[in-house]
Amino acid sequence: MKRSDLTEKILDIKREKEWNWKYIAGEIGGFSEILIVSALLGHMKLTKPQAAAAGKLFGLSKAEIAMLNEVPMRGAGTPMPPTDPLLYRLYELVMINGPALKALIEEEFGDGIMSAIDFDMEIARVANPKGDRVKIGMTGKFLPFKYYGATGNNLEYGLKEE
Amino acid sequence: MKRSDLTEKILDIKREKEWNWKYIAGEIGGFSEILIVSALLGHMKLTKPQAAAAGKLFGLSKAEIAMLNEVPMRGAGTPMPPTDPLLYRLYELVMINGPALKALIEEEFGDGIMSAIDFDMEIARVANPKGDRVKIGMTGKFLPFKYYGATGNNLEYGLKEE
Amino acid sequence: MKRSDLTEKILDIKREKEWNWKYIAGEIGGFSEILIVSALLGHMKLTKPQAAAAGKLFGLSKAEIAMLNEVPMRGAGTPMPPTDPLLYRLYELVMINGPALKALIEEEFGDGIMSAIDFDMEIARVANPKGDRVKIGMTGKFLPFKYYGATGNNLEYGLKEE
Amino acid sequence: MKRSDLTEKILDIKREKEWNWKYIAGEIGGFSEILIVSALLGHMKLTKPQAAAAGKLFGLSKAEIAMLNEVPMRGAGTPMPPTDPLLYRLYELVMINGPALKALIEEEFGDGIMSAIDFDMEIARVANPKGDRVKIGMTGKFLPFKYYGATGNNLEYGLKEE
Amino acid sequence: MKRSDLTEKILDIKREKEWNWKYIAGEIGGFSEILIVSALLGHMKLTKPQAAAAGKLFGLSKAEIAMLNEVPMRGAGTPMPPTDPLLYRLYELVMINGPALKALIEEEFGDGIMSAIDFDMEIARVANPKGDRVKIGMTGKFLPFKYYGATGNNLEYGLKEE
Amino acid sequence: MKRSDLTEKILDIKREKEWNWKYIAGEIGGFSEILIVSALLGHMKLTKPQAAAAGKLFGLSKAEIAMLNEVPMRGAGTPMPPTDPLLYRLYELVMINGPALKALIEEEFGDGIMSAIDFDMEIARVANPKGDRVKIGMTGKFLPFKYYGATGNNLEYGLKEE
Amino acid sequence: MKRSDLTEKILDIKREKEWNWKYIAGEIGGFSEILIVSALLGHMKLTKPQAAAAGKLFGLSKAEIAMLNEVPMRGAGTPMPPTDPLLYRLYELVMINGPALKALIEEEFGDGIMSAIDFDMEIARVANPKGDRVKIGMTGKFLPFKYYGATGNNLEYGLKEE
Amino acid sequence: MKRSDLTEKILDIKREKEWNWKYIAGEIGGFSEILIVSALLGHMKLTKPQAAAAGKLFGLSKAEIAMLNEVPMRGAGTPMPPTDPLLYRLYELVMINGPALKALIEEEFGDGIMSAIDFDMEIARVANPKGDRVKIGMTGKFLPFKYYGATGNNLEYGLKEE
Amino acid sequence: MKRSDLTEKILDIKREKEWNWKYIAGEIGGFSEILIVSALLGHMKLTKPQAAAAGKLFGLSKAEIAMLNEVPMRGAGTPMPPTDPLLYRLYELVMINGPALKALIEEEFGDGIMSAIDFDMEIARVANPKGDRVKIGMTGKFLPFKYYGATGNNLEYGLKEE
Amino acid sequence: MKRSDLTEKILDIKREKEWNWKYIAGEIGGFSEILIVSALLGHMKLTKPQAAAAGKLFGLSKAEIAMLNEVPMRGAGTPMPPTDPLLYRLYELVMINGPALKALIEEEFGDGIMSAIDFDMEIARVANPKGDRVKIGMTGKFLPFKYYGATGNNLEYGLKEE
Repeated sequence: MKRSDLTEKILDIKREKEWNWKYIAGEIGGFSEILIVSALLGHMKLTKPQAAAAGKLFGLSKAEIAMLNEVPMRGAGTPMPPTDPLLYRLYELVMINGPALKALIEEEFGDGIMSAIDFDMEIARVANPKGDRVKIGMTGKFLPFKYYGATGNNLEYGLKEE
Repeated sequence: MKRSDLTEKILDIKREKEWNWKYIAGEIGGFSEILIVSALLGHMKLTKPQAAAAGKLFGLSKAEIAMLNEVPMRGAGTPMPPTDPLLYRLYELVMINGPALKALIEEEFGDGIMSAIDFDMEIARVANPKGDRVKIGMTGKFLPFKYYGATGNNLEYGLKEE
Repeated sequence: MKRSDLTEKILDIKREKEWNWKYIAGEIGGFSEILIVSALLGHMKLTKPQAAAAGKLFGLSKAEIAMLNEVPMRGAGTPMPPTDPLLYRLYELVMINGPALKALIEEEFGDGIMSAIDFDMEIARVANPKGDRVKIGMTGKFLPFKYYGATGNNLEYGLKEE
Repeated sequence: MKRSDLTEKILDIKREKEWNWKYIAGEIGGFSEILIVSALLGHMKLTKPQAAAAGKLFGLSKAEIAMLNEVPMRGAGTPMPPTDPLLYRLYELVMINGPALKALIEEEFGDGIMSAIDFDMEIARVANPKGDRVKIGMTGKFLPFKYYGATGNNLEYGLKEE
Repeated sequence: MKRSDLTEKILDIKREKEWNWKYIAGEIGGFSEILIVSALLGHMKLTKPQAAAAGKLFGLSKAEIAMLNEVPMRGAGTPMPPTDPLLYRLYELVMINGPALKALIEEEFGDGIMSAIDFDMEIARVANPKGDRVKIGMTGKFLPFKYYGATGNNLEYGLKEE
Repeated sequence: MKRSDLTEKILDIKREKEWNWKYIAGEIGGFSEILIVSALLGHMKLTKPQAAAAGKLFGLSKAEIAMLNEVPMRGAGTPMPPTDPLLYRLYELVMINGPALKALIEEEFGDGIMSAIDFDMEIARVANPKGDRVKIGMTGKFLPFKYYGATGNNLEYGLKEE
Repeated sequence: MKRSDLTEKILDIKREKEWNWKYIAGEIGGFSEILIVSALLGHMKLTKPQAAAAGKLFGLSKAEIAMLNEVPMRGAGTPMPPTDPLLYRLYELVMINGPALKALIEEEFGDGIMSAIDFDMEIARVANPKGDRVKIGMTGKFLPFKYYGATGNNLEYGLKEE
Repeated sequence: MKRSDLTEKILDIKREKEWNWKYIAGEIGGFSEILIVSALLGHMKLTKPQAAAAGKLFGLSKAEIAMLNEVPMRGAGTPMPPTDPLLYRLYELVMINGPALKALIEEEFGDGIMSAIDFDMEIARVANPKGDRVKIGMTGKFLPFKYYGATGNNLEYGLKEE
Repeated sequence: MKRSDLTEKILDIKREKEWNWKYIAGEIGGFSEILIVSALLGHMKLTKPQAAAAGKLFGLSKAEIAMLNEVPMRGAGTPMPPTDPLLYRLYELVMINGPALKALIEEEFGDGIMSAIDFDMEIARVANPKGDRVKIGMTGKFLPFKYYGATGNNLEYGLKEE
Repeated sequence: MKRSDLTEKILDIKREKEWNWKYIAGEIGGFSEILIVSALLGHMKLTKPQAAAAGKLFGLSKAEIAMLNEVPMRGAGTPMPPTDPLLYRLYELVMINGPALKALIEEEFGDGIMSAIDFDMEIARVANPKGDRVKIGMTGKFLPFKYYGATGNNLEYGLKEE
């Protein structure tokens, strides 16, 4: 069994039952919707109680429930660059705004990155008379590059800009 | 003259003068910092008065000033997938969270996309005792897919979910 | 079930029944032929009543009908560059005429794009004594790049050329 | 001298002189604007009189004028998929609408292609209260696939659908 | 059913029956051998009577016969560059002789291409005491690039070299 | 000095002098036009006397003449798939007709290839009332795959079909 | 049936029966081991008697035996660059030693190639106190590039270095 | 000025002066050798005092010194997969051992990654009678994937395995 | 049967039985955990006794047990660059630290590589109050490039730096 | 200065002086011709005395001589797959014979590889009445995969086949 087969199975049941993601996320509970949907699409894991709840909801086997509790091979199955317009626009934003984001984040925070692991994201609708807007907010911990000496000790240069 | 040569020239002067982006953006004025830095890095255009201000600041020729007022070939010079860790993390976020974002945006808004053109973005520091966080906020107009009949008329199905 | 499997099923029934696309599009109704064919080939969605009509025509299951009402992962399955000559010629037109189109559209409209979402397309036969011609017409809303200040406000520079 | 160097030179003079494409095309004359701009950007050729006119306008050398009269290595320098949003949208339209266009053109015309050589294109602005639209119209000769027998004779099956 | 599945089925029957291509092409008739073999391998279409003959020969279903009468997604399944030595040599000939062919065809015919649609090809054995030679002959209609004015009229510059 | 720099130099002189390829090939002599043009474009070598003649014609240095007598890194600088329509059509012919050519050559000659080394090619114009045709003829020695035993002896199975 | 399926079947039987390649090659006979193993892995063909012997050994059907007698789509299924270390080392040797091999072979033999078709290869163990060595020996016919005049006659310049 | 030009300049001076990396790193001081060499090769930054020391050592201009204090576009100029054998072996280790590392790290630590930012590395020689060994040691902070609820709060599921 | 199918089967049983890798490696015994997990994931082989133990544990057939004792096509199925964040970080470390590792290893050891074959690796947890760290240690035999004379004799220049 | 620039310089002098590789290798001495040519083409290093000899022969600067004594970034500048026919044939041999070589080497030697580092190669002409043959002989040390236990000790399973 591959994780992508389990995803197909879950989507087929979702179609059959006419459930939407909001309902499914509510039944499984505990996490932000985006994490639960990601897990069911094969890019995040559920905790054991969540996987059990999902197993009950979708009528899954023991091995399928265990699979939902495993860390998947993240990113599998997303063609890059994305062919889908909704996903491509996000890719394009990285490609075009990336260099400026790098310059400004490094000027503000020093040498490091915004973590994609200690990270959260939310989506919201912003009403607008000219047409509603999609708002995506994200925060990621700033991780300074570790500068170290011969002994591997942390020299902390990443944080104080020198 | 290529746009990338002009970018190199501007960066060399920035180094020579020991200016930071905040100062440069302040001198040029009018736009968000991210847009001005993007323009100087070759992915956005400046307006004529802004290009003139940049020309004065950096001592540019008439043709160089005109080039800053031109729409560049956006995205040129950003290797994808990005080799730089700061940029790669953003790419990774699209690859891994993309499918869930698509599912949730379409469930909330119907068939369409978040525009990458009628779009704005801001970066901020969020203080946090466990380590400050980088916050990236963006809003883009939701554009519903146009469904049309034989005459090309807009059938408006994208917006009302049917 | 994958969308591509549903497409294969629909095409097999079309072969079996000796239907052509014009007939199928007429039975489903409501949209331009190009949208309906695109939906059946897995790149657009049908509305619920259309999906129901398609379900009746092709004898589809409840989950298959629901799938036709879902936004697909657009662009999946089209190899790029296209290997098929008919499709490759369109690709070639973009590659060769693209730079001039960019120059002329930006000179006429300012900084922005022709939307591929708020977009319509039609195909027609143009009789010609030297050999009939294929006519493809398309209109897309011009979307000006949003230029914004520190507060995210729209500065409207995209439209008035400055 | 490479064609791309000549293109850079022409663009630098255009910036210096503050000419727009409409003016340049008018000075060179004879062809549609899109062809003249394409030639100056390195994807089409000018006729000898046109190349001479361009040479006078831009102050080009004899070899440079001769180069404008040569068929260039078309498509050179356009990254595919395009990184620029304006060009990418056209690429996306081919990727997503391509399969339906193939199905409908073949149903209407039989086995063959729309020529990208015996081909013309025009761009226009369509005023619209919700935002003006870019209109791209193109016609290409329909070329039926030649079906031939052992002697290489044309069997003409491409045109009459059998 | 995919076209490639039908191809596999036809090849299995060919193996079972110990037929060669000459025999098969003779039974289907009407076209050059190369076209018939191409159609059975999924890159050309057969006419309705030919598809019926193929259906009788191979014992195909109604949908399979209809599929042979459809224009396939040409080029699907040929890896490029080809891994097979026989095919790679042809690819190599294009890569290495291509630039000279372009120079000489354009010098002789003007700006345009040799059509790959209005095109025929034949293979023959040329006896030679040092080892027989494979002869491949092909003719394609010369298609001059259409040069047109603002009204889309054909300016015919492609043919008379100017 | 790179071979591509020498090619650029030769092309610039050709433009300056208003020579065509026929004239240049006549001055250098000895080989088919296609070989001489290929050599000047960097894909074939000239013999010492030919290189000397080319050196006299174009006013080349001793090292440049020696370079024309060297075997170049063939195929360098031809993007594959070709972006130029004239070259792409040849590439497409390989991709689409390749599988049938393989089947028919192997049926006629046994297991082996048409050599791309012991190979010749010619181009001609074929007058035709519906539009002249480009004729490309090529012959390549058939090279049977060597089948050998443990001692490396040639078992000659490639030629007699067994 | 695909050639790769037949390969899987043969390998499964080899595992079941605990045969090694030496035994299998001995049973089929006639060719060098490397050719027989290549054929069973889908990159060479067996003669009819050999295919029959293989069919008897592995218990194959008539169509499967016929498939072993067919020229396969060589190279299919070998990812390049190879991911497997044993294969990658060979690839690396070509990449790194290739330019020197080209220079030295051309200096010794003139303009041409070592044939990969009229070619044989053998592997042997070379005992060595510091660790045994793998010895790979290969010979390929030197094929001089054919230089020809306008009539396609062989000018034989490839062999005598001029 | 590009970072790669500065790297070339530094390497040329290193050759001229016959310095080795150990000496250079000693002169610049403060960081592990691997960080200093990485910075001089364009993948890390030096602090201001270090950049000044490097500037004195290599005789650099003010802008060049400032460039060494900038965060570079990391990873630029390393072809992947690496063509160099020393680098390729490291790449291969990731490709082949990666899946097992993922399984074991996740079993030991839960869902998360080894940081490549809060990371240190050291190289050492391990004497061995059969041939000395290269020892590479690295430690990276384990970063648990953040699981969060609707409010973006950290749910801490990554650490305690559930 | 493909190796990847066997891997899927083993993983399904592991889920069903709720075993972890530590338990499985203990049952099979003899090798480091990382080697056993790699073998079960299809990148290493087990010895015959280990394969038999694995066969007993997982209830495998004779052919499946034999397959575990075969050298697999290593690296198959790991997409590169890796899409999974845990694996990507390792890839990134090679890309960014690779050039400095090359410089320092060659300065210390001379011309050669760290073997990826005569190689071992271990993972450990390093407790740390700021968050535990993953420690990866590896040693590989240093292999000096063999420099040899015309007779193929080893000149041993790789080891003593000259 | 890049290594490729030094290669170009050396080749220009070789052309100017009309030297062949045999003469150059003789002047530098000590190594097999293939190693010396590889070093001058940028894929191997020379020892200090050899680099000095090359420096005298070609009139090189101190930094250029030092560069010849450096380990280069091997493999840089060889496009893969190779476009040149002589090099491509070697690549093809790996792609097509690779799987059988893997099977036979592993059957003979156990799990491991033929080293590409402890490796030598020679080229020779083999006279043959049907056309001389190129003989390439290579030997590489067989390196058994190290199998190790938890303590990193060598378990030596690679050599004795179990």
